[in-house]
Amino acid sequence: MTGGFRFRLTGRTPPLDVEGWRRRAGRRVPPMVWAYIENGADTERTLGENRSAYRDWYLNQRVLTRTTDVDLTTTVAGTRLDLPVAVAPVGLAGAAHWHGDLGLARAAERSGTRMVLSSASTYSIEEVARGTDERHWFQLYPWGDRALTASLMDRARDSGFTALFVTVDVPVYGNRLRERRTGMGLPPTLTPRRVLQAALRPRWAYAYLRHRRTTLRNLVPDGTRGTAVESVTVQSENLTADIGWNDLEWIRSRWDGPLFVKGVLHPDDAERVVDLGADGVVVSNHGGRQLDAVQPTVRALPAVAQRVGHRAEVLVDGGIRSGADVAVALALGARACLVGRPAVYGLAGGGADGVAEVLRILREELVRNLTMMGVAASADLAPHHLTPAPR
Amino acid sequence: MTGGFRFRLTGRTPPLDVEGWRRRAGRRVPPMVWAYIENGADTERTLGENRSAYRDWYLNQRVLTRTTDVDLTTTVAGTRLDLPVAVAPVGLAGAAHWHGDLGLARAAERSGTRMVLSSASTYSIEEVARGTDERHWFQLYPWGDRALTASLMDRARDSGFTALFVTVDVPVYGNRLRERRTGMGLPPTLTPRRVLQAALRPRWAYAYLRHRRTTLRNLVPDGTRGTAVESVTVQSENLTADIGWNDLEWIRSRWDGPLFVKGVLHPDDAERVVDLGADGVVVSNHGGRQLDAVQPTVRALPAVAQRVGHRAEVLVDGGIRSGADVAVALALGARACLVGRPAVYGLAGGGADGVAEVLRILREELVRNLTMMGVAASADLAPHHLTPAPR
Amino acid sequence: MTGGFRFRLTGRTPPLDVEGWRRRAGRRVPPMVWAYIENGADTERTLGENRSAYRDWYLNQRVLTRTTDVDLTTTVAGTRLDLPVAVAPVGLAGAAHWHGDLGLARAAERSGTRMVLSSASTYSIEEVARGTDERHWFQLYPWGDRALTASLMDRARDSGFTALFVTVDVPVYGNRLRERRTGMGLPPTLTPRRVLQAALRPRWAYAYLRHRRTTLRNLVPDGTRGTAVESVTVQSENLTADIGWNDLEWIRSRWDGPLFVKGVLHPDDAERVVDLGADGVVVSNHGGRQLDAVQPTVRALPAVAQRVGHRAEVLVDGGIRSGADVAVALALGARACLVGRPAVYGLAGGGADGVAEVLRILREELVRNLTMMGVAASADLAPHHLTPAPR
Amino acid sequence: MTGGFRFRLTGRTPPLDVEGWRRRAGRRVPPMVWAYIENGADTERTLGENRSAYRDWYLNQRVLTRTTDVDLTTTVAGTRLDLPVAVAPVGLAGAAHWHGDLGLARAAERSGTRMVLSSASTYSIEEVARGTDERHWFQLYPWGDRALTASLMDRARDSGFTALFVTVDVPVYGNRLRERRTGMGLPPTLTPRRVLQAALRPRWAYAYLRHRRTTLRNLVPDGTRGTAVESVTVQSENLTADIGWNDLEWIRSRWDGPLFVKGVLHPDDAERVVDLGADGVVVSNHGGRQLDAVQPTVRALPAVAQRVGHRAEVLVDGGIRSGADVAVALALGARACLVGRPAVYGLAGGGADGVAEVLRILREELVRNLTMMGVAASADLAPHHLTPAPR
Repeated sequence: MTGGFRFRLTGRTPPLDVEGWRRRAGRRVPPMVWAYIENGADTERTLGENRSAYRDWYLNQRVLTRTTDVDLTTTVAGTRLDLPVAVAPVGLAGAAHWHGDLGLARAAERSGTRMVLSSASTYSIEEVARGTDERHWFQLYPWGDRALTASLMDRARDSGFTALFVTVDVPVYGNRLRERRTGMGLPPTLTPRRVLQAALRPRWAYAYLRHRRTTLRNLVPDGTRGTAVESVTVQSENLTADIGWNDLEWIRSRWDGPLFVKGVLHPDDAERVVDLGADGVVVSNHGGRQLDAVQPTVRALPAVAQRVGHRAEVLVDGGIRSGADVAVALALGARACLVGRPAVYGLAGGGADGVAEVLRILREELVRNLTMMGVAASADLAPHHLTPAPR
Repeated sequence: MTGGFRFRLTGRTPPLDVEGWRRRAGRRVPPMVWAYIENGADTERTLGENRSAYRDWYLNQRVLTRTTDVDLTTTVAGTRLDLPVAVAPVGLAGAAHWHGDLGLARAAERSGTRMVLSSASTYSIEEVARGTDERHWFQLYPWGDRALTASLMDRARDSGFTALFVTVDVPVYGNRLRERRTGMGLPPTLTPRRVLQAALRPRWAYAYLRHRRTTLRNLVPDGTRGTAVESVTVQSENLTADIGWNDLEWIRSRWDGPLFVKGVLHPDDAERVVDLGADGVVVSNHGGRQLDAVQPTVRALPAVAQRVGHRAEVLVDGGIRSGADVAVALALGARACLVGRPAVYGLAGGGADGVAEVLRILREELVRNLTMMGVAASADLAPHHLTPAPR
Repeated sequence: MTGGFRFRLTGRTPPLDVEGWRRRAGRRVPPMVWAYIENGADTERTLGENRSAYRDWYLNQRVLTRTTDVDLTTTVAGTRLDLPVAVAPVGLAGAAHWHGDLGLARAAERSGTRMVLSSASTYSIEEVARGTDERHWFQLYPWGDRALTASLMDRARDSGFTALFVTVDVPVYGNRLRERRTGMGLPPTLTPRRVLQAALRPRWAYAYLRHRRTTLRNLVPDGTRGTAVESVTVQSENLTADIGWNDLEWIRSRWDGPLFVKGVLHPDDAERVVDLGADGVVVSNHGGRQLDAVQPTVRALPAVAQRVGHRAEVLVDGGIRSGADVAVALALGARACLVGRPAVYGLAGGGADGVAEVLRILREELVRNLTMMGVAASADLAPHHLTPAPR
Repeated sequence: MTGGFRFRLTGRTPPLDVEGWRRRAGRRVPPMVWAYIENGADTERTLGENRSAYRDWYLNQRVLTRTTDVDLTTTVAGTRLDLPVAVAPVGLAGAAHWHGDLGLARAAERSGTRMVLSSASTYSIEEVARGTDERHWFQLYPWGDRALTASLMDRARDSGFTALFVTVDVPVYGNRLRERRTGMGLPPTLTPRRVLQAALRPRWAYAYLRHRRTTLRNLVPDGTRGTAVESVTVQSENLTADIGWNDLEWIRSRWDGPLFVKGVLHPDDAERVVDLGADGVVVSNHGGRQLDAVQPTVRALPAVAQRVGHRAEVLVDGGIRSGADVAVALALGARACLVGRPAVYGLAGGGADGVAEVLRILREELVRNLTMMGVAASADLAPHHLTPAPR
């Protein structure tokens, strides 16, 4: 058994695809955190279809195209990105890994892209601004308390965040059964069994105790005992369904920079959002975590892109796990994709490096796919690069 | 592991959805009772499709709708309900829990709705009337013996039941294999093994021996030995296929109050029923327990609603397990839904309190869904709130 | 635990549906015989779709129809049948149970219907004629040897068989992998393991040794050692693809009675068959045992029925396991169904009594279904009694 | 248990279908080789659909057609073949069995057909030429190095290869996760566990050590230690996406004989290939090993055949595992099929004899199918011999 082989003692390789990072993440965090990351609302039908609906489409292969240097650059919210994938806002990122939102942001900028910082972040707006080299984007829940909302917008602007993403699909908190069953409620509930499960992930548990990045630092000053309860109280008290188009107008009037509205699925809503002055929309169902039984995003995307794509930037998230998924989304009219869970898988599995690795995998897959599709620039992707799959 | 968490000794939570109540119910009752509750006719194809066909539709999400106070009220049979869900008639409810039909009725009225009392109830018409605060509805099998039928109608009217639901889809008893295999025939057959299985559910077995609520109290006077045989004999002797439109006319002529015909799937039948003076129809296939291979109700509903919805009240049952299912049914033309098995799951799992909890879950799910759909009142639901799902 | 129950020592019930008889049969015969009964050609795609394609259709329920006396009679080949189901020709029936073809025939006539005796029967034409009260039908392979073919026709006529079923879908023997893998080739191959497996079914093994009904008695005189080899040699030598329309003409010219052609799927073939003077066709793919990847019969049936149904009798076999399946087939244009495997399940599981029980179950299911469909006579079934199921 | 049976000590039979040969092959080679043979790119969606998409179609059965002598001959690239199936080019064939490419070629010619020798073969062009009786075909990667490419063409021509198959669907190497996970990268990586796994297949391991047919003999002179690394280096260095239509023109200008372009899925590409002077195209997605999420070949075939079938030879590969699959492909417009994995299954499972046996099985299945379809010559197959299957 010699001759032309390389020898190693173990065959363990780092994950080769997003699914591999998902599995690694599942081994690294305690079950209650895993439930929080993975679960969707109610029956998780939309969660599942967000992924499976990408099989509605085939990628078209073309040959002898001399596609040697695939250009993945795009411009989103006035920022030039090296790849058409940015990091979606994710709440409580510090629970996955103490690097948290800061790790996501650093990995994003290392990868030539940006992160959308969640309002429910575990590093404050200012901490993320100080810890990064580039100017990122900020996600805002339009809370009922306008003073609080305004203060977050001011802090984000003052800290140099260039674009605002207003999430409109959480008038109420989605009914996420797995996290409720494992105690990830408001506040989280611990039992002896759950403490033991966490202790069996000593790397995670040590980091948790050492860094305590599981409170919402934009809402409460620090991580001392009691602030977690306070932070969830602040958030849940401010969550309200009493939010309407005039609130969006008010936000638009107070924010000079690019403004995106996240959580739009209906083309009529997309149109009104753009009429109101938004620069873009994110076609999103909140990763299947809000209204279960709603369309998967890749099926909602074409109608939205057709309605407002000529005068606004259309992004999409939900179910994207590969470069092929990105290619489908772009061909159907998205300018870029946001990835939430994939980034969190990388974070949970390897901190900021893991996130960067996930983004590298997506980039590599996308380049490979476009090379074989004979598409020299991801921005050129169009419906004729796809074929509908029979069902 | 401190800071912002709540501590408890155990993570056991009450069921969070109807499926959870189903599982609990399955652990509480003996296998032969469970078979009776769960089984459908023949291959159980219709039983299964009753549920899966709800995936024909997506709910439409709308944003910034300022939907803060969702109105679930409706009026069925002249009774104002706080939610568009009532309890379907279920035979032999006392086998699930000794609270039986009385528990179902009490839970329904606590929840702001009503129960349809089965002819095959384990509490008599009079017992239910005495034990409840509100006036409920009564289900009638149009038995061959007109004197018996008339006496039930008279008793129901005299006891204050306001509406009559005439079940027309049991000209013969459906071929339910699971209950036949476990001995739930007419009469039930016990074996040493089955007695042992019941003994392993001591809470159920004790209540059975103590309360003996497993005979049909509308047909036989009390629960002494022998009356169960007598009650099933009465029922099976009176079950007949020799029932026609003139029998319905006769019933209509003898009942002054609202009259619904339950078990209608074909729009021509629905039209004739309404022409004959019925106030409403229940689109039903008897929970998949009668004609196997018949359409699931949610697929039969639209044609019926289109044909008679403008001049009669259209209800539907079969396969409804969540607020999302209720929303689909209402958008397709139902005025309200009836739930049979979900109520029995609650009953078996927790008596009257369990039933109330199931109804509370359905209400909460429906409110949450409508909030995210931007629908302020369930009565406003219409086809444009849905999108057909590709198959 | 008293009061209204019946007590028994065991809950074992006889099978309640065809599937139950299938499971019983599988326990009674050795694996190699089971493989022969159950297997289809190649990948068994057609075998599977023969059954699943019945889910293309829903039965329509109608109410208040006063359907009390369902009439199942029909006339096939000039013979009045009490139910629209006859027993299909099955080869080597004696391997399932020593009652063999005689058991099938006796059960059929006890059930008010008829059997089509296979050329490859384990009781000779004369034995079956002597052992039965009614005149049955005879199936003929159009072997290359016209003298042999003619002699079989003469013997069938002389023995009183009234109708001839010419099987045309075996120009070559289908590639049935399961029977080949278990040694059921030509001739069957025994190994120590297979002998042991048979010995573990002592009831079957004893009957096999006692009655030796596993040779083709129409082709060889008796069951002595060596005749099995001889019989398969005769059959395989005579099997030929060199059979054409003129052979059918020749058969037609030599047979005065009703003549059916079995194994027709294409409407052009059906038309030519009828033009040539056949009285009927059997839409059949030989139970999925011949050309794999061919249409399931229930999907081929409508076009054939539409083409020749007005001037010929159209029968169908393949995949029928319930009264609901029979109802679908009749509604799509079949005059009656043939059942092969269901009859063999009954035979293997209980001899002639088992076959009669299977036919009783089908009858009971069909009556129950038609009652709920409001169809007073199975002969009235038509496409409007069905609704296409979405796929 | 006597009478008409054959006795044997064991029931072990040789595989009866391609799937059986697949299972045998999986038991014979080490896991890392098996991963290399079996895997597809990324999620392996296309790999799976290549097979399942053959279920889009039913074969039409016709009767009484007197089809006794099915003619399977066809002419591909000017060579008359006895069956419309040739052996696809497969890289690293020697890893499956030391007979390698030479075994494939010999089995092909014994079976009346030809092999396409891979550039990445483990026997050199000259070795294969010397070891065979017929003139086979040669597959060429259009490497960036024109001198290398030209030298391979010259060597193929000088060695008597008659046709050239230019593979155009590998501008980059597909992302095959299973082979990467098991160490089959460039170069292969061994671990103690993998060595052990190989040692547990002693027949394979011995042959490997004895014959060392796992290097690319067209690129490096022999199999000494180090040459494997060298060979993969040569190949990967020369693999380039910088290949365009002018490269194909150049190849066309340098090759006098028949020229096929392999890896075409889009009809526009097929047209341009033929305009450029190619004699044929192979509709191929490289066995699902390159662009995942691309159409299965049987779905891409009809459009290509319709566009260029009248003036070029259209071949197809991917997912073909049976004579029925071949029949579908031919009916949809293919002149012949190429089989890669089926041939390798035969090779791994039984060397050259195994390959011949696989080809024999395919032939036998195809003859049987065409007999029952009433198609006297495979070249007559046309769309009207198929019926689309509902989905």
